[in-house]
Amino acid sequence: MHFTSEKRLEDGVLEREFVLGEVPGVLWTPESVSTPVPLILNGHPGGLRKMYPRLAGRARSCVAGGYAAATIELPGAGDRPPLPTVDEARADLRRALKAGEPVTGDIVDRLVLPLVEQAVPEWRATLDALLELPEIGGPVGYSGGVISIGTRLAVVEPRISAAVLFAGSYVPRSMLDEARQVTIPVHVMLQWDDEGNDRQHALDLFDAFGSKEKTLHANMGGHTGIPPYEAEAAGRFLARHLK
Amino acid sequence: MHFTSEKRLEDGVLEREFVLGEVPGVLWTPESVSTPVPLILNGHPGGLRKMYPRLAGRARSCVAGGYAAATIELPGAGDRPPLPTVDEARADLRRALKAGEPVTGDIVDRLVLPLVEQAVPEWRATLDALLELPEIGGPVGYSGGVISIGTRLAVVEPRISAAVLFAGSYVPRSMLDEARQVTIPVHVMLQWDDEGNDRQHALDLFDAFGSKEKTLHANMGGHTGIPPYEAEAAGRFLARHLK
Repeated sequence: MHFTSEKRLEDGVLEREFVLGEVPGVLWTPESVSTPVPLILNGHPGGLRKMYPRLAGRARSCVAGGYAAATIELPGAGDRPPLPTVDEARADLRRALKAGEPVTGDIVDRLVLPLVEQAVPEWRATLDALLELPEIGGPVGYSGGVISIGTRLAVVEPRISAAVLFAGSYVPRSMLDEARQVTIPVHVMLQWDDEGNDRQHALDLFDAFGSKEKTLHANMGGHTGIPPYEAEAAGRFLARHLK
Repeated sequence: MHFTSEKRLEDGVLEREFVLGEVPGVLWTPESVSTPVPLILNGHPGGLRKMYPRLAGRARSCVAGGYAAATIELPGAGDRPPLPTVDEARADLRRALKAGEPVTGDIVDRLVLPLVEQAVPEWRATLDALLELPEIGGPVGYSGGVISIGTRLAVVEPRISAAVLFAGSYVPRSMLDEARQVTIPVHVMLQWDDEGNDRQHALDLFDAFGSKEKTLHANMGGHTGIPPYEAEAAGRFLARHLK
C-alpha cells in the first residue's frame, strides 16, 4: 500500500489517497489516534472522483464517530481499465429498461458477478494492508453498495463483524445462496421505488440472509433519495456492533 | 370522560384510568405540566389487563419523552361485551392455521373489519375528550396495532399528524384502498417471521400508503420479538413529527 497524497480536512480528519497494486483508494482517519480505532469499509457504485463528495461526507461522519473509513475504486470504474463485458451488460441493461423489457437474469449476472469476483479479493487485500497500520484496529464493518459485493464479503471475510448493505443494485439470483451463508448482523437499506433496482429481488435477498439479527429499512425517494435520518440509523447499527 | 382511579407511578408519571361511555381506558401524563404536551394514542391487540405491563412501559417512555399517552380497550376485548361474530372469525382463523389451510379473505374481513368499524369512532371520541384536558395539547400521534385501525384513523382523523403502525395483524384487502388515502408520515414496524400475520399483505399495505414519507422497519424475532432499538427508532420518528 503506497500513500500518494495526504490532506488535512477540517474537523480533524486526515485524508490519504493510496494505491494497492493497481487499485486506488482513500483512507480517512482521525488526525491523532491514541488507541487503534475500528474500521468501516465504505462501498459505492464505482467512480471515486464522481462519488468523492458523498464518500468524503460519509467518511467524515465515520471519523467523527470514532472510526477510520476507507474505500477503493470498483473494477472497471473511474481511472481503472474498463471491463468490456461488464460495459456490454450495462448497455444491454439500459436498452432493456429503455424498451420497457424485463431485465433478464443473464444481464444481471454479466453485470454484477464479474465485479463481485474481482472486487472482493481487492477489498480483502486492502483490509490486510489497512489492519497493519498502527492507527487502525478492529472490529471492521462494511457499509454501502454494491450489495452483492457486501454479501460475498460477509460470507468469505471473517474479519467483517457487521454490514450495512444498500440494496440499490440488481442482484444475481445466485446471491440468494450466498446470502443464506451470512451470519453476521446485517442492516439493509432499500429505497422502495429505486429505479436502479428490482424491489422483489432485494426483499428476496433480505429474506435469504442467514443472520439472526437482520433489519430492513425501506424508505421513499428513489435511488439517491435516502433520507438523512437513515444515515444516523446506519451509524447506530454499526456502533452497536463495532463499539 | 370519567376518571375512575388515579395513581402516581415512579418517575413522575400520573396514571389515570377512565371510562368514556362504555369504553375503559388509561391516560398517562407527567405529574406536573406547565404547558400542554403532545399526545400519543397507543394501540394494542386488545385486553388492557393482560397488556398492561407493556402498555405502561410504552406510556412511561412517552411521558419521559415529553408526551401524554393514552389507550382504550378494544371492542369485544377485556371486560367489554364479547363480539360473537369476531370471536367466531377468530376460531375459524385458528382452525385454518392449525390445519395448515390458507387464511381466506373472508376470515380476515370478519375478524378485523368489525373492530375497525367500532374502534375508530371510539378512538375519535376519546381524542375529543382528551384534547379538552388542559394538560394535553397537540400534535397527536398514533402508535401500535391494530394496523387496520391505525390506517383508518390516519385517513379519517385529521388531528393525527403521524403514525407508527405495527404490522402484526391480518390485513383485509379493502384496507389497501384506505391506505392509498393516507398522507401523514407513517413508520411501519414488521416482524419478518410474524406468526400472527401475512408478510406479503403487510408489504402490500406499506406499498399502498399514499404518504410521501413512509418508512418500513423489518426485523427478526417473531410477533413479540421486536428488538429494543426499534422502540427507540419509533420514538425518534414521533419526535421528528410531533415536536
